[in-house]
Amino acid sequence: MTYCVGMLMDRGLVLMSDTRTNSGVDNISVFKKMHCWSVPGERIIGIMTAGNLATTQRVVSLLEERQKAKPDRHPTLLEAPTMFQVAEQVGILLRDTIELRPDGGSSRVNFGATIIIAGQIKGGDPRVFMVYPEGNFIEATADTPFFQIGEAKYGRPILVRGYDRAMSFEEAIKLVMVSFDSTIAANLSVGLPLDLLVMEKDNFVPLHERRIEGSDPYYQAISRTWGEAMRDALESLPPYSLAGNAPG
Amino acid sequence: MTYCVGMLMDRGLVLMSDTRTNSGVDNISVFKKMHCWSVPGERIIGIMTAGNLATTQRVVSLLEERQKAKPDRHPTLLEAPTMFQVAEQVGILLRDTIELRPDGGSSRVNFGATIIIAGQIKGGDPRVFMVYPEGNFIEATADTPFFQIGEAKYGRPILVRGYDRAMSFEEAIKLVMVSFDSTIAANLSVGLPLDLLVMEKDNFVPLHERRIEGSDPYYQAISRTWGEAMRDALESLPPYSLAGNAPG
Repeated sequence: MTYCVGMLMDRGLVLMSDTRTNSGVDNISVFKKMHCWSVPGERIIGIMTAGNLATTQRVVSLLEERQKAKPDRHPTLLEAPTMFQVAEQVGILLRDTIELRPDGGSSRVNFGATIIIAGQIKGGDPRVFMVYPEGNFIEATADTPFFQIGEAKYGRPILVRGYDRAMSFEEAIKLVMVSFDSTIAANLSVGLPLDLLVMEKDNFVPLHERRIEGSDPYYQAISRTWGEAMRDALESLPPYSLAGNAPG
Repeated sequence: MTYCVGMLMDRGLVLMSDTRTNSGVDNISVFKKMHCWSVPGERIIGIMTAGNLATTQRVVSLLEERQKAKPDRHPTLLEAPTMFQVAEQVGILLRDTIELRPDGGSSRVNFGATIIIAGQIKGGDPRVFMVYPEGNFIEATADTPFFQIGEAKYGRPILVRGYDRAMSFEEAIKLVMVSFDSTIAANLSVGLPLDLLVMEKDNFVPLHERRIEGSDPYYQAISRTWGEAMRDALESLPPYSLAGNAPG
């Protein structure tokens, strides 16, 4: 499985993805699921992928290739005039890749995948999209300001409770890291290292880009103290009474 | 969907289930998913069900009927000598019900269901089992002391972090209620009211049995203060630094 979060805030965008892929529990590998392209001063585009690895790698490879072989390969992400058109390009590529079905439709393999796209092109605001296997997509808004793909459920309650669109990047990274820690503690199919990417609004280069290994002291501190903080939080709630039902 | 938790502790057993069933999002109903039978001083058996409602209601109705029509209906839960044999009875009944397939196998309906059984029969310890649609089952142990069925993922991280087998019933109820609140806040298919059942070790009547409505002041207090407690817990973690990675 996979877990990725793309978050829209007043200050910009925060993206985090894990790197674990598995084909059965006895075949686990590390693959990068986050990719970023930028034209300094003009555009920055990040994508994160979940689903069939052959599908998502083909999509990313084609997006890469189109940018390099100049005249004949169109359209490219680096020429799209808006983030909406970036999402359309990626959606078509994703749908076409899934529809190839190298098995001719005979196997039960799921070739599906889902993609989060986040970025900004000069003249527009930072935007986040979630692209479905069918190639269509939805966009994050003030009402639904973040998207999760993959093993999204374990880490959702803390995002729902902790998200605030006015938060700083530092607070947002802490929140997302707790969401990943909750997921990793509960589900073997999501694993370290994590990839982190922060894009500041109107700053068309990555503000902060890091791989977080299992040995990372900050991740370890979060993982250790979050367990204690959760137990303290439970402790702080009013006690239940077997006799009466009134809150304490 | 459904969410049910059955928890084994030193003091006894705590069971909680929601009551929402749905067939599509436009067809939502309230059905009891928790049932309890006891012979005071001798045995107490609780079950919670998730899955196809026609399947689970048939299993529960047959378990009920067998206890009433005395001589001809065997075996009954109230005669089984051990909790292990209770689980075997329920497993066979569940498997046979699913295998009936009233559609003759022609439709794509999922007739499957999963059941948690928890209880104690004099001479044995309190035990918790999870019965699979195939009729086989596993038992909670010191290593894995609670089972969840249905929409288990949202509420799992807090259970993993907060569970302690030496905890009081009051603490356990608080923990389970937070787990349900996290699930209900994130997923429409799990809903109030909740059913709660507490069985004290060697006390063969329900120690505490309640339906928790949405208007319940304790549930409301938990739901309100847990959001704040989570945000405070986040606040208490070391800050992330965009410049360096050392924990604060």
